Amino acid sequence: MNDKKQLFWGKMTGVLLLVLILFIGVVAHFADEGMWTFDNPPIQLLGNLYGFTPTQEWLDHVRLSSVRFMDGGSGSFVSPDGLVLTNHHVAVGQLQKISTPEMDYVTSGFYAETPDEELKCADLEVNVLVYMENVTDRVIAAISEGMSEEEALKAREAVIAKIEKESLEETGLRSNVIDLYHGGEYWLYRYRKYTDVRLVMAPERQAAYFGGDYDNFTYPRYDLDMAFFRVYENDKPIRSNNYFKWNAEGAGDGELVFVSGNPGSSDRLFTYAQLEYLRDSYYPLVLNYIDKRLSVLREFMQEGPEQERKALVQIFGLENSKKALTGEYESLLDKNLIEKKRKDEETFRQLVDSNPEWQRFYGDAWETIMKVTRVQSESATRRFYYQIRGSNLATIASDLVFYTKEIKKPDSERLEGYHDSQLDEFKFNLFSPAPIYYDLEEANLTGYLSLAMEELGPEDDFMQLVLNGRTPEEVSQELIQGTKLADVSLREALFEGGEKAIEACQDPMIKFMKKLEPVLRDNIEWNKKNIESILTLAQEKIAKARFAIYGKEAYPDATFTLRLTYGAVKGYPMNGTKAPYKTTLYGLFDRALSFNREIDFDLPERFWERQDQMDLSTPVNFVSTCDVLGGNSGSPVINANAEIVGVIFDGNIESLGGTFVFDETKNRAVAVHTGYITEALRKLYDAGKLMNEIEGK
Amino acid sequence: MNDKKQLFWGKMTGVLLLVLILFIGVVAHFADEGMWTFDNPPIQLLGNLYGFTPTQEWLDHVRLSSVRFMDGGSGSFVSPDGLVLTNHHVAVGQLQKISTPEMDYVTSGFYAETPDEELKCADLEVNVLVYMENVTDRVIAAISEGMSEEEALKAREAVIAKIEKESLEETGLRSNVIDLYHGGEYWLYRYRKYTDVRLVMAPERQAAYFGGDYDNFTYPRYDLDMAFFRVYENDKPIRSNNYFKWNAEGAGDGELVFVSGNPGSSDRLFTYAQLEYLRDSYYPLVLNYIDKRLSVLREFMQEGPEQERKALVQIFGLENSKKALTGEYESLLDKNLIEKKRKDEETFRQLVDSNPEWQRFYGDAWETIMKVTRVQSESATRRFYYQIRGSNLATIASDLVFYTKEIKKPDSERLEGYHDSQLDEFKFNLFSPAPIYYDLEEANLTGYLSLAMEELGPEDDFMQLVLNGRTPEEVSQELIQGTKLADVSLREALFEGGEKAIEACQDPMIKFMKKLEPVLRDNIEWNKKNIESILTLAQEKIAKARFAIYGKEAYPDATFTLRLTYGAVKGYPMNGTKAPYKTTLYGLFDRALSFNREIDFDLPERFWERQDQMDLSTPVNFVSTCDVLGGNSGSPVINANAEIVGVIFDGNIESLGGTFVFDETKNRAVAVHTGYITEALRKLYDAGKLMNEIEGK
Repeated sequence: MNDKKQLFWGKMTGVLLLVLILFIGVVAHFADEGMWTFDNPPIQLLGNLYGFTPTQEWLDHVRLSSVRFMDGGSGSFVSPDGLVLTNHHVAVGQLQKISTPEMDYVTSGFYAETPDEELKCADLEVNVLVYMENVTDRVIAAISEGMSEEEALKAREAVIAKIEKESLEETGLRSNVIDLYHGGEYWLYRYRKYTDVRLVMAPERQAAYFGGDYDNFTYPRYDLDMAFFRVYENDKPIRSNNYFKWNAEGAGDGELVFVSGNPGSSDRLFTYAQLEYLRDSYYPLVLNYIDKRLSVLREFMQEGPEQERKALVQIFGLENSKKALTGEYESLLDKNLIEKKRKDEETFRQLVDSNPEWQRFYGDAWETIMKVTRVQSESATRRFYYQIRGSNLATIASDLVFYTKEIKKPDSERLEGYHDSQLDEFKFNLFSPAPIYYDLEEANLTGYLSLAMEELGPEDDFMQLVLNGRTPEEVSQELIQGTKLADVSLREALFEGGEKAIEACQDPMIKFMKKLEPVLRDNIEWNKKNIESILTLAQEKIAKARFAIYGKEAYPDATFTLRLTYGAVKGYPMNGTKAPYKTTLYGLFDRALSFNREIDFDLPERFWERQDQMDLSTPVNFVSTCDVLGGNSGSPVINANAEIVGVIFDGNIESLGGTFVFDETKNRAVAVHTGYITEALRKLYDAGKLMNEIEGK
Repeated sequence: MNDKKQLFWGKMTGVLLLVLILFIGVVAHFADEGMWTFDNPPIQLLGNLYGFTPTQEWLDHVRLSSVRFMDGGSGSFVSPDGLVLTNHHVAVGQLQKISTPEMDYVTSGFYAETPDEELKCADLEVNVLVYMENVTDRVIAAISEGMSEEEALKAREAVIAKIEKESLEETGLRSNVIDLYHGGEYWLYRYRKYTDVRLVMAPERQAAYFGGDYDNFTYPRYDLDMAFFRVYENDKPIRSNNYFKWNAEGAGDGELVFVSGNPGSSDRLFTYAQLEYLRDSYYPLVLNYIDKRLSVLREFMQEGPEQERKALVQIFGLENSKKALTGEYESLLDKNLIEKKRKDEETFRQLVDSNPEWQRFYGDAWETIMKVTRVQSESATRRFYYQIRGSNLATIASDLVFYTKEIKKPDSERLEGYHDSQLDEFKFNLFSPAPIYYDLEEANLTGYLSLAMEELGPEDDFMQLVLNGRTPEEVSQELIQGTKLADVSLREALFEGGEKAIEACQDPMIKFMKKLEPVLRDNIEWNKKNIESILTLAQEKIAKARFAIYGKEAYPDATFTLRLTYGAVKGYPMNGTKAPYKTTLYGLFDRALSFNREIDFDLPERFWERQDQMDLSTPVNFVSTCDVLGGNSGSPVINANAEIVGVIFDGNIESLGGTFVFDETKNRAVAVHTGYITEALRKLYDAGKLMNEIEGK
């Protein structure tokens, strides 16, 4: 799976998320490397390498046919009637939310043969990028000479909030100012956003996630990792010509393909000091946290099949993160990689120092960042655990407590997430009617509080405030069993009632978060003052130095915004031999039987019953040199004619170091082949009607 | 393929072969590790780990059902009528020798439906180990105190030659004194030897070697790497009850299995200094040599299909060696492995030093070896290239020149290979009627001389003697085009005629080798004096220290003699996921099609035509934790009932470091499943008659 930082999107609102978001950079590119913005596609490179020059019309069509899933993933339109194709693992959260103890769609799959059978998702938002405008000058103009680092940060935040608010009011479109090349450029992106999204089809998880956590992030692979949604507006499917035509033949060995999607985050231009911080502090800390959370969930799952159903999606997300982060961590432990990074930085700094003006303006940035990472390291554990993690109810309470205070401030002074332009999204999440499982919540919260106690010690101020002499079990039980926040109408009442309603509220979870609020705010302020404001300026300097030396022949680090990547369909050297560019249905049955159909490697009965009806030489998955990351899950793979030939669902294990460096010799994007989708829909799932819509028949 | 040192067996008669043969040691064992001699099977360990205790009868039956292929490999009897099963890649040299421009059995495969169609091999010898006797006391008694290192070496060589000669004269059996635990024990092994061995069946190389050099030494794998021979005596198939009963079901996941075969060579107990020597001198030298030889052969192959046919087996052997040696080399470059070795040695030496008597007798051995490896390093390149390598005709000439001189000496004073007990084997090889290809010989010799010139430089004494002012092409052309040594009767005449005939012989290759003889002899003598005699004593000390500390709860390093290894059928962690314990026919077709049936991954037509008749869930290959090495190729895999369930044909890529250390977590022996052989013989090769014989029907 690609959504490796999924865990942190949404949940990790503390210091580390900020660090992740802020640390974006810009890199020089080689060969098939790069996640290019649609305003700056590598036209010349494509011409030189592949003899293909995309037109503006081609670029616009691809952009408008591409979709972003706000809960972490990508997709594309594949019919004129708003049909969207993405991954099963992007859809799995929604599948769980519409499931019940009686009907588990994650296990059984789902297919709506007629429109009225399509199931509306509780809290799914998808976006289409319709407008891009460079607003760098306006953002930069807000910062005047002589401002302190903190003042500069505030001024930057204020102007960004203003641009977003104006744009929203003017157009009604989702409006985000994107920081590209880490402060090198700021762009206003406007999205058409859709919140009436309905589930059309998903196979059984066993077919989609064949090989389970074992095969996750590996290749050769045999997964039917697909799901179909339909986008509605005014209770009708949208109609549009911006969709990808279906090509069931797929792409041939060596063929040029493109991926249009939303890579989540990368750290390719971190300084050497930042990489050391990640290696020595961040990854050990987070991997330990994930391990402990997983053991809590696995224990919970043992209690019965219903508990298993409830915990499965969280376990999947954490296992996915664990495997991804472990791969990233190991790539940082690789002495060759870290040495290469050190040398690259040395060269870059020598170039900067060779020009007296550059040296004066930019030369101190690396030292500054090194000092900041030392400060980060010193308090990393404390600041990570000065948070309540892993409980949805705690997050809801915290959001309400913060919202009611923030909303009273002028827009420009509010914390990130509470600006006027962000309130629609905030409400969409806060008022989600998705089910909340009290038993799971209690297990998670108890587990988290025990872990925090372990890490911080009983004498710690925050722990004393949290536990107040009681055990994690007691606190968790009281909070979860006492709170009524699962009731959406209570959330609405508190939201409307504002600070006064919060003050008066006797809900134990609200009271608990009120008590913690000063510490949480202090945390955020400390981080802005000591980390974010200093880093932002230093990284901006590096970005400017890079532009000065290399120009714009480079792409920005990933920011979960739309990017175009290109590459060739191509195998690679693997494990002493080579991995093929594609796999076939023969291989799917081989892998199932070679493990004697043990749990992670079994297939739904329909596969065994209908095996004879299928053409076993049908391609299942294939790989290309396209440069993808977490967030690209569900992205369309298209050929030069903008026909869809596959759906990205993963990177190979070798690509996990891609967070820090792209290696074309072995980094590969793994996709579901359109031939497999066609064969499966027609012959396994009796979904000929859906397939006819896709093929325009 | 497992026969990784095949290249050096037979061809590398210089200093390095001696080094390889001499450096044997003894290691402590853990879990499924170990290549155990049949006099010292790990009875207690087997009982503890698997609850199985082999009886003496079981052990004798297994030993007598096992076969050694003298040109490098193992096999087993699988019918009461002398039918032997081994690997295709063990048989491939013989397949090439019986092929003609009109009929290439390597490509087309071979099947003799009736006995009179069975094809006699030109120079194939197979052995069965029938007798083992510990002669350590007798060998040790030959060495008296006060002897110099050189004198000790001579005395040891003399007594061994004497024991072998007496045994041969007494029994008529092939008699070899084997040095085990590096001088810790000496054993007289007697073999029943067979030289009338006929080819019964071999599939096409494309099926046997599916995946080619890419998949060589890897897993998952899909190879039908099998061949059948029949052993004759007095022109009749031998009859014996010592054969393995067929079990087409194979072994289940986790089942205990055994491998009985002849691992070629391992260096598990090399001292740290010896590993450094290998890493810094030996492997770079030999890998460079192989690369250059391969480029000569590949150029030769370009000239046409007939050239390709002639060069193929040599290319296969060299590619195989290259991949194996590269894996070994890389394992030595692995800092963890080398650090573990250093620590193990430190512990061992501390134990030795902790006992004053041990310290006095054995304590200086490591320092001595370190000094010797320095001497080796200094002259490694020169001594490697003070040889004529890569030409069969040059080897024949050299053998004749040396033989006629050596035979005049008392038996005990002759060079290794020329003792009375070794003459049968010497003559069998010297008078082999196998075809010699002049064009290939010339290309090889030219290539070798050019390489030697590159490495030694034109001013080198040896090169001046060899070239005498001419170019490598001129010398090679004159020698190969002028020599008549391809004619076996000429070799016989020179052999009979002795030194006088050699003196009078005007054959240019004989004259050439006569001219080089003093240098070659000097090389051998230098090595005995400066390396072998010193190393032998030092290693003997280490072996004794090991016995003193650890007793005989250990196995000796591999010596291409019969060993029993045991383990479980078991997958392993691989490339981010896990490798299954077996593969199936589905997987074979998947891999072929996933590469679009490109050359190395295509299959003979019969596979495509008869696919529907086969059960695609039939297991193809499987892996176990059995500890195997080069030389084990063709070994039977048997279950606790001594039924054959597979044929070893390879180790996985992770097992290449097994030369130095066994790692049960990922080292695996790869075998052809008996189910695949059964299915293939009956349904693909119309060899039901052969299958009936095997199954006793």
